[in-house]
Amino acid sequence: MATVTFAPSGESIEVPVGTSMLDAAILCGLDLPSPCAGVGRCGRCRVRIVGGEVQRRSNAGLEVAEVADGWAVACQTFVYGPADVEIPQRRKESVRPHGHAVAEPESLPLTSDWRQHPAVRTFELQIEPPSLSDNTSDLDRIQREFVRQHGIEQVRAELPLLRGLAAALRAADWNVCVTLEMRDWVHGIYLPPRMIDVRAAAAHAGNFGLAVDIGTTSIVVYLVDFETGRVVDTSSAYNKQIACGEDVTSRIIYAKRADGLERLRTLVVETTNELVAELTERNHITPQEIHEVVAAGNTTMTHLLLGLDPKYLREEPYIPTISSPPKLTAWDLNLKVNPQARVYCLPGVGSYVGGDITAGVISSGLFATEKLSLLIDIGTNGEMVLGNKDWLLACACSAGPAFEGGGVRHGMRATAGAIEDVFIADASLEPSFRTIDDAPAVGICGSGLIDLLGELFITGLLDKAGRLNRDAATARVRLRDGVPEYVLAWAGENDAEHDIVLTESDVTGLLRAKAAIYAGYEVLCHSVGVDLADVEQILIGGAFGQYLNVEKAIRIGLLPDQPVERFHFLGNTSANGAYAALICTGVRDDILDIAAKMTYLELSADNSFMHEYTSALFLPHTDLDAFPTVRDALMPRADGPVGPRVDAPKGG
Amino acid sequence: MATVTFAPSGESIEVPVGTSMLDAAILCGLDLPSPCAGVGRCGRCRVRIVGGEVQRRSNAGLEVAEVADGWAVACQTFVYGPADVEIPQRRKESVRPHGHAVAEPESLPLTSDWRQHPAVRTFELQIEPPSLSDNTSDLDRIQREFVRQHGIEQVRAELPLLRGLAAALRAADWNVCVTLEMRDWVHGIYLPPRMIDVRAAAAHAGNFGLAVDIGTTSIVVYLVDFETGRVVDTSSAYNKQIACGEDVTSRIIYAKRADGLERLRTLVVETTNELVAELTERNHITPQEIHEVVAAGNTTMTHLLLGLDPKYLREEPYIPTISSPPKLTAWDLNLKVNPQARVYCLPGVGSYVGGDITAGVISSGLFATEKLSLLIDIGTNGEMVLGNKDWLLACACSAGPAFEGGGVRHGMRATAGAIEDVFIADASLEPSFRTIDDAPAVGICGSGLIDLLGELFITGLLDKAGRLNRDAATARVRLRDGVPEYVLAWAGENDAEHDIVLTESDVTGLLRAKAAIYAGYEVLCHSVGVDLADVEQILIGGAFGQYLNVEKAIRIGLLPDQPVERFHFLGNTSANGAYAALICTGVRDDILDIAAKMTYLELSADNSFMHEYTSALFLPHTDLDAFPTVRDALMPRADGPVGPRVDAPKGG
Repeated sequence: MATVTFAPSGESIEVPVGTSMLDAAILCGLDLPSPCAGVGRCGRCRVRIVGGEVQRRSNAGLEVAEVADGWAVACQTFVYGPADVEIPQRRKESVRPHGHAVAEPESLPLTSDWRQHPAVRTFELQIEPPSLSDNTSDLDRIQREFVRQHGIEQVRAELPLLRGLAAALRAADWNVCVTLEMRDWVHGIYLPPRMIDVRAAAAHAGNFGLAVDIGTTSIVVYLVDFETGRVVDTSSAYNKQIACGEDVTSRIIYAKRADGLERLRTLVVETTNELVAELTERNHITPQEIHEVVAAGNTTMTHLLLGLDPKYLREEPYIPTISSPPKLTAWDLNLKVNPQARVYCLPGVGSYVGGDITAGVISSGLFATEKLSLLIDIGTNGEMVLGNKDWLLACACSAGPAFEGGGVRHGMRATAGAIEDVFIADASLEPSFRTIDDAPAVGICGSGLIDLLGELFITGLLDKAGRLNRDAATARVRLRDGVPEYVLAWAGENDAEHDIVLTESDVTGLLRAKAAIYAGYEVLCHSVGVDLADVEQILIGGAFGQYLNVEKAIRIGLLPDQPVERFHFLGNTSANGAYAALICTGVRDDILDIAAKMTYLELSADNSFMHEYTSALFLPHTDLDAFPTVRDALMPRADGPVGPRVDAPKGG
Repeated sequence: MATVTFAPSGESIEVPVGTSMLDAAILCGLDLPSPCAGVGRCGRCRVRIVGGEVQRRSNAGLEVAEVADGWAVACQTFVYGPADVEIPQRRKESVRPHGHAVAEPESLPLTSDWRQHPAVRTFELQIEPPSLSDNTSDLDRIQREFVRQHGIEQVRAELPLLRGLAAALRAADWNVCVTLEMRDWVHGIYLPPRMIDVRAAAAHAGNFGLAVDIGTTSIVVYLVDFETGRVVDTSSAYNKQIACGEDVTSRIIYAKRADGLERLRTLVVETTNELVAELTERNHITPQEIHEVVAAGNTTMTHLLLGLDPKYLREEPYIPTISSPPKLTAWDLNLKVNPQARVYCLPGVGSYVGGDITAGVISSGLFATEKLSLLIDIGTNGEMVLGNKDWLLACACSAGPAFEGGGVRHGMRATAGAIEDVFIADASLEPSFRTIDDAPAVGICGSGLIDLLGELFITGLLDKAGRLNRDAATARVRLRDGVPEYVLAWAGENDAEHDIVLTESDVTGLLRAKAAIYAGYEVLCHSVGVDLADVEQILIGGAFGQYLNVEKAIRIGLLPDQPVERFHFLGNTSANGAYAALICTGVRDDILDIAAKMTYLELSADNSFMHEYTSALFLPHTDLDAFPTVRDALMPRADGPVGPRVDAPKGG
């Protein structure tokens, strides 16, 4: 027996060791939501373990930072000794502020001290005003004072800064703050510091940077305070290039038009600039205070951002112009931050393994681990990296935008009002769902789509080929214009303005997406003679990776059916890698090492890919034996509380 | 006695030693023009000394290269032994092709071998096309081949080049010529070579550079072939900024308007781009083949070219934003040459001693001589440098645009149709003149204005205060709208479309200009306790310096009355210095040394300047004793041939 004490009520109860927290709470008379009745499917019964002995079967639906903070899924967490548990009084505010968690340097797997070699530093400089007898130029005067006051020689300045320098010095009455880029380099040669900004010392301006994930479908921007190293805010939006095609292939085709490339370049810059404007406004800072930008994107996105012709990325043998982008400033790219801000685009490896993947290898810790690891980045392009600190093998496949809500009738990004998880009751076939920020339902985001697909399948509303059961005992399966669809929310339900549905053709798109990804990592493993079961950890990245529920993703065959503790949900590994490189210049060297070390496997040159893809076009897979837990789940379930599985309890 | 043989006729004559070549030719019955009757004023009696012993009193009106080639003023050149002389059959064609002499590296006082460290080099590269098994990026592939084929590591590329790289490589079928910037540096740190151009090896493109003199009034562009080091063509035009003010002060005031600075920047770029277009068209090359630009200008011109606020250049204590401009490319400045071409703006010393003067110190050889030397750069701004290889003292004064034809009713640049020298007969008071390219008279260029001023003065048509003699026995002095003016050419005379005149207010402008310059070097010398007579050589630079006639310039008091052999006419020292820096990277280091070594004397902080200026507002000067040769010339002259002066014959 063990005693569990619940905060904030202070009530406690003695329960047998092995009892789930959900049962303990219910026995104590506390009100915890549990629409799936404690089978670990809905993820609503969240509690926070303040202290004590517990074992977790699954952390499904929780973010890494939340788990670290003690959050647990009550029905999947079991009492093994006295425990203190907090019951949330109401839904945590802004679990996903603007769609993403606020991050800290400590959350990054950095190999060097991020404070030791900052990319950007600000110095105060009190300058003796010029006179007829001391009439050296403004720039020479600053250089002289940097030597005198800070021992820094040969501080450099480029044209956009020089254009405002004379006025800035005089407006500040020669007492200035100067922000320097400390780690500017060309091919391994470090250059003297470069001035990014000069402003009045009295102005008390901030020192910020941006980590930008340039996705085919979505762009995510982290605003980072260089003083604390923390992400202070994030924003995201659909990449406006979507108007020119939903995936990289259609964008590349669009770029062939007259002015097509320039239009694509302008659209991605526009999207980014709008996100930056949103962040600066909301946080009461000026664009001038943003002193560096690190951007991670796939190779096509990087080419388009830079205005490089992407044509040869899709023509055999698929050659990018560059893998490692040149040194650029915001001025070069027309990004509306400080024009002198360095824009560091993370280097990639090939036409289909870009800076987003090297970023993922960094932020996942894959580059530093001894364990055989598989990193899966699920986005419009699915990219996978297999390996460890000694070797890295990567491949890529086109999944399409379905998981980011693209090409799906009521798909949407993970913003307020997106249905992000779904549970369908076995008996009534009635769904219950949760929207982001508990806002009125607007559509369904990626994690919601995966949930919904899995729930439809497990409840028999969808067959393994992705066909809706037209004879199901629910009005929610209906035909519209001859196409079957499932009504997840009726107009008015959760304030939805209209019916929110998933059509059979939406399902087809989702099956194709998950099949491409499954086939990708399957071929990757086989190509080096590794079985999926040999992989010691499976790291899930991608723009929406942080919201994935592993069991639900396994259920639809998107993730391999491996023990749940092998999975690690890393969130937006691309943005997180950019963030790591932004605050820690040592990471930039690490990324160059990674890019040099990684081998790219061209799937189009591999016949087995198409075979694996075709086999994976089913729920969960043609070979049900490859998904034993799904096979078992399809058996009729017991109704009572579920005890720990034999293979499960291995601690949080 | 000595024998003189004349080519091409082959006639010869024996004359007494000391006879002038003009007399010898006349005695031989040959037809040499001599409107001034052999007093060395008109400079028309040119001959070429092929061999033999002669002594020259003056090379007035001849260019350095012409003297080196044997050209001589016949009435100022005396027979001292047997001599072979060539009489030109007709005026040499294009003595000033497009206004400037074609130059060669050998004409430059270079301290290092210009071929040894070229700024720009072209390499052939045969690249193995990519394949699925060798799918490295285009840039990485080029870098790999540079190491393999030329031993050059880490070749760099910037964005504008990368944007066309993929297409260029494929259009060339992977056999390319790559032009590299070999000497790229940041604060003394040399960087790996940078790609400027990639084109098909079969294209046989050229390798050119531009030396640009950005004057307040005129812009001069030299087109230089990097293979031979020679100037292959030149072009020049008025700086379009003239529309915004004639001198630097008015430009600086204009820059304060909304968009004023941007307009000035655009205008100088436009002027330069039009000159470049003229050169590329005439020489059948593409702008893409121009791989580097060196620009020299005064500090205001450099600030305006770069879009730097010039406001503080004219506010005490007169501080420029920069003395040494940053690294730029043609892309940064919107110059229509190869966008990757480096634009190297020569560094200056202060607000009124710019890159044009450091260029002059280079191209004049002043920085390397033991002799106490005075460099005078006559332009809209007059700048002077006194010193030798050990020390350099500089000052500047505003002369106004008169010598470049600006602000003078019929003033014009030295282009076809400009009256470039003038002779007025003592008796008839009738002028004769010569126009550039013998074209129909259009106006009067700087050298013509100086000639005319001197002739008007020496013939008594103008008094020492600059007033025209209204009672002179010639219809050419007349009143128009109450202002006296001298008609140099009637409409129809030499095909002039209208009367070409010099007004009394034109004269006032010219007197102010020459007074400012005289006062400048006078104060400069006095400030270090040097007398003008102590100066061993007087080097005359500036955009129109090459056309100056020293005796005529002395006559109006523009140049000091010192022995003629101390004067050296160096032509456009600014353009020539830019040219030296363009072909010889060693010169760029020399120029940095010069800029570091030179001390700037602020004339506005010197009371003696205004005193000297006021004294110099007369013809030639209030103190006629400072101009003994002018004083003597004002005495009635003998009519016969002039023998050598006692102090003169020191050889060519």
